[in-house]
Amino acid sequence: MSTPAKDLTITDVRLTPVLVADPPLLNTQGVHQPYTPRLIVEVETAGGHTGVGETYGDTKYLELARPFADSLPGRRVSDLNGLTELAGQVSVAARRVETGVDVGGLRGVQTAEKLRLSVLSGFEVACLDALGKATGMPVHALLGGRVRDRVEYSAYLFYRWAEHPGGAGEPDGWDEATDPAGVVRQARRLADEHGFTSFKLKGGVYEPEEEIAAVRALAEAFPGCPLRLDPNGAWSVPTSLQVADALRGTLQYLEDPASGTPAMAEVARAAGIPLATNMCVTTLGEIPEAFFQGAVQVVLSDHHYWGGLRATRELAALCRTFGVGLSMHSNTHLGISLAAMTHVAATVPNLDYACDSHYPWQTEDVLTSRLAFRDGHVTVSDAPGLGVTLDPDRLAVLHERWLSDDGTMRDRDDAAAMRVASPAWVTPNVPRW
Amino acid sequence: MSTPAKDLTITDVRLTPVLVADPPLLNTQGVHQPYTPRLIVEVETAGGHTGVGETYGDTKYLELARPFADSLPGRRVSDLNGLTELAGQVSVAARRVETGVDVGGLRGVQTAEKLRLSVLSGFEVACLDALGKATGMPVHALLGGRVRDRVEYSAYLFYRWAEHPGGAGEPDGWDEATDPAGVVRQARRLADEHGFTSFKLKGGVYEPEEEIAAVRALAEAFPGCPLRLDPNGAWSVPTSLQVADALRGTLQYLEDPASGTPAMAEVARAAGIPLATNMCVTTLGEIPEAFFQGAVQVVLSDHHYWGGLRATRELAALCRTFGVGLSMHSNTHLGISLAAMTHVAATVPNLDYACDSHYPWQTEDVLTSRLAFRDGHVTVSDAPGLGVTLDPDRLAVLHERWLSDDGTMRDRDDAAAMRVASPAWVTPNVPRW
Repeated sequence: MSTPAKDLTITDVRLTPVLVADPPLLNTQGVHQPYTPRLIVEVETAGGHTGVGETYGDTKYLELARPFADSLPGRRVSDLNGLTELAGQVSVAARRVETGVDVGGLRGVQTAEKLRLSVLSGFEVACLDALGKATGMPVHALLGGRVRDRVEYSAYLFYRWAEHPGGAGEPDGWDEATDPAGVVRQARRLADEHGFTSFKLKGGVYEPEEEIAAVRALAEAFPGCPLRLDPNGAWSVPTSLQVADALRGTLQYLEDPASGTPAMAEVARAAGIPLATNMCVTTLGEIPEAFFQGAVQVVLSDHHYWGGLRATRELAALCRTFGVGLSMHSNTHLGISLAAMTHVAATVPNLDYACDSHYPWQTEDVLTSRLAFRDGHVTVSDAPGLGVTLDPDRLAVLHERWLSDDGTMRDRDDAAAMRVASPAWVTPNVPRW
Repeated sequence: MSTPAKDLTITDVRLTPVLVADPPLLNTQGVHQPYTPRLIVEVETAGGHTGVGETYGDTKYLELARPFADSLPGRRVSDLNGLTELAGQVSVAARRVETGVDVGGLRGVQTAEKLRLSVLSGFEVACLDALGKATGMPVHALLGGRVRDRVEYSAYLFYRWAEHPGGAGEPDGWDEATDPAGVVRQARRLADEHGFTSFKLKGGVYEPEEEIAAVRALAEAFPGCPLRLDPNGAWSVPTSLQVADALRGTLQYLEDPASGTPAMAEVARAAGIPLATNMCVTTLGEIPEAFFQGAVQVVLSDHHYWGGLRATRELAALCRTFGVGLSMHSNTHLGISLAAMTHVAATVPNLDYACDSHYPWQTEDVLTSRLAFRDGHVTVSDAPGLGVTLDPDRLAVLHERWLSDDGTMRDRDDAAAMRVASPAWVTPNVPRW
C-alpha cells in the first residue's frame, strides 16, 4: 500500500505569476493597488501527483523563485529540511537584495533572508500538498495531525474607498469606510456573511483619536467580541501609550503600535494591554531580543514570512516555551494560502487567538471551489494534501492579466497607488503620529 | 498508491517490559545495576503494520504507560500532536508522582511532566515507525528528511569495574577502568572497535584532580580529538571553576559541572569553556531562565526526556534561535532508541557535536540485527520506518528475565547497586566536591 520513494521525486516545477484583484484598502503607507502580484507554484512528482503552493509574486520574489524552481527536479517532495540550505544557495546566486523598508508588505526592514523564506514557503507548501496526495494524508497529518477540526478567523476591517481612483481594477460591491460608522457597517456585513465574532481594524490611516473612536464604535456594536487595532508601527511611544490608555479594557491586543523592538518594549512595559506583532518579530533572529525584553506578548505568525508550515510550528514551540501568545497574520492571498494556514493552525495546540485573513477581500481565486468561512471558522480538510483543486482556466486568466500588465502592477507599492489619488503623497516617516 | 486513512488506525498496543544486561558503570550516585529495565512498545495498525518504540521501564514509567497504551486503539498513528494532551489526561488519572531527585536517571528533579514525556516518547517513536512502514517512508522523511546520511557518535567512557559484585549479571569482557591509564585503555578499545574520534568521560566519581588527570591522559593519547567531562552536577561553583581552569583548551565542553541553573550560570560566566547540560535544561519550562542567564551553551537533547523525535526537533529550533549548541544525550538503551536518535539527528541542521550513546555497553538487544558504528558514525536508514526489526525470541528472553526478577532490578537504583559492594554507601549530597 505504501508509496515507492521514487514516486516522490520531483519531475517538474511550474511557476505562474498572477495579478489578483485587490480592493482599495488603506494602510499607513498608502492604499492597495487595483491588482496584487502572487506566485502560484506547482510541483509534479514521478508518481503523477501535483502539489500547489502560493507566495508573494513581486519581481524580487520571482527572481529568487525561478532558480529555486530549477534546482528542485530530482529531489523528493519529502526532502523538506533540505529546502532551507537550497534556498540559501539559490539566493546567494541571485541578485543582491537591497536592504530597506519593504514598501509593499509592511513587514519591517527587507532582508535577503526574509525574501528567501517567503519564496521557500511557496515551495514547501507545494511539496507538502504533493506528499499528502502521494501518501493519502492531509497536510495537517504530515504536520503531526490536527488538534481541532476547524480554525477560527477574525474579520479583517480596513478603512477603504468604495472604488479605486478612476474606477480602476475590479468593482467588489463594498461601500467606503472612512469613519467609525463606516467601519461598523463593514464589520456588520463581514459578520453577517462569514460569521466572524472577533474584529481587527487596520489602523495607522487616520489620526489616532479617529481610530480610537472607530474601536469604541465597534465595541458598542459588538459587545463582548474581541477587538484589535493595528497601525503598522505608525505611532511614537507616547502616542502608543495614549491609545493604550484610551482602549485598555476594550482591545484584546494592540498590534504593532510602534516600530522596532526597543519602542515596542517601552510601550509593553506601560501599556497594560498585550502587544501583538508581525513587524518587530518576523524572523527567528528577531526573537531573542524581543522575548528577553518582553516587547511582544503575541506573535502573529505568517507561514510566508517564517518559511513554511513546519517553520510556523517551530515558532509555535518557541512561543509556547516563552509564554508568548500565538496567532496568525495575513496579507493579500488566495485560497491555497488560506488552506495552508488552516492546516498548520489546526495542528498548533497553543493557537491562542482567532487568525487574521484578507481572504474575504479577494473576489478572485485560482481554485475550482473557494474556501468558506462558517461561523467565522474554516473547516480543516481531511482530504489528501491541502484539499484544494487548482482551476487551470482561472489560473490562465489571472496569469494573462500579469502578462499583459505594463509593469505598474507587478510590484506592489501602496505609496505609488496612493499617488494616483494624491500625487503629492510620500510614504510617511515613522512615527507618523 | 496511497495509504487509506483507516489503515493507519491503531488496533492493538503491546507493552513488554524487559531487563537488559548493564555493566558496572560508575557515576556520582553509585553504579549501574546488573540489569536495567526498559519498556518495548509495539503499536499495530489496521493496515497490518507494527511500529516499535522503546523507553524507560521502571515501575513508575510502566504505571503511566499502561493506561496510555489502553487509550490508543482507535486513534491513528499519524495523530502525533494529540498524544501530548492524551498523555496529560492519562497521567492525571495515574498515581500521584512524588517530586524528588530521580536516583536512577541522573536527570535532576523528578516531576510528573518528565515521566509523562518519557513515556510519550516510546509511543511517539512506535507510531512514527508504523506510519513510516504504512507510507513507505523512513522516519527521517516523516520528520522532513535527512540533511546528512550518517550521524556521528562519541565514545562514552565510564569509570567501571571489570564485573558486578559477586559476578552478578552478564560478563561483558571489559577490564576495569578506575584510573587515567584504565580510562585511556577503554577509550582505545572503543575507538578501535567503533571508530570513535571524540570522547566523553562520565565523571563525578573520583576527586576532581583524578578526573582532570584522566582527561589530560586522554588528550595526550588522542591529540586533536574532542574531549568532554560530565560529573553530573557533582561539583560546587568554585570546584567547577577550578576544573575549568585546569582543562580550558583541553575540553570541547564541560557537561553539568554544577547543579541547577543559578550555579551553572555562575560557572558559565567565568569558565571560559562552553557548558553542556542534560540536567539543568531537560524540559521546555527550564529553557527561558537558562537561556536568559546564559547558563548553558550546549543542550544535550534526549528524545526520551523531551517527549519524542518531533519535540527534539522543536528543541533544535529553540537552540538555533538562541545561538545555543545542540547535541544528544543517552542513557542505557537498546537499538530501537539508537535508531530513533539517528533518524532525528539526521534531520537537524544544527547538530553541532557528536552525539552520546551508551549502546556500545549494551551486549543485549531486542533486534534481529544490531546497529553498527562505522568510523564512529551510524548510517541513517532509508528503509520504511525506523529500519529495525524486532526479534520476538530475544524479546521473550529479556521479558522472561523481567518476569522472574524478584523486584530488585525492576527499578533502576544506582545507589542501591553500590550498596551491594559498599553497604554504607548513601547517595552523596550535591555538591559532592
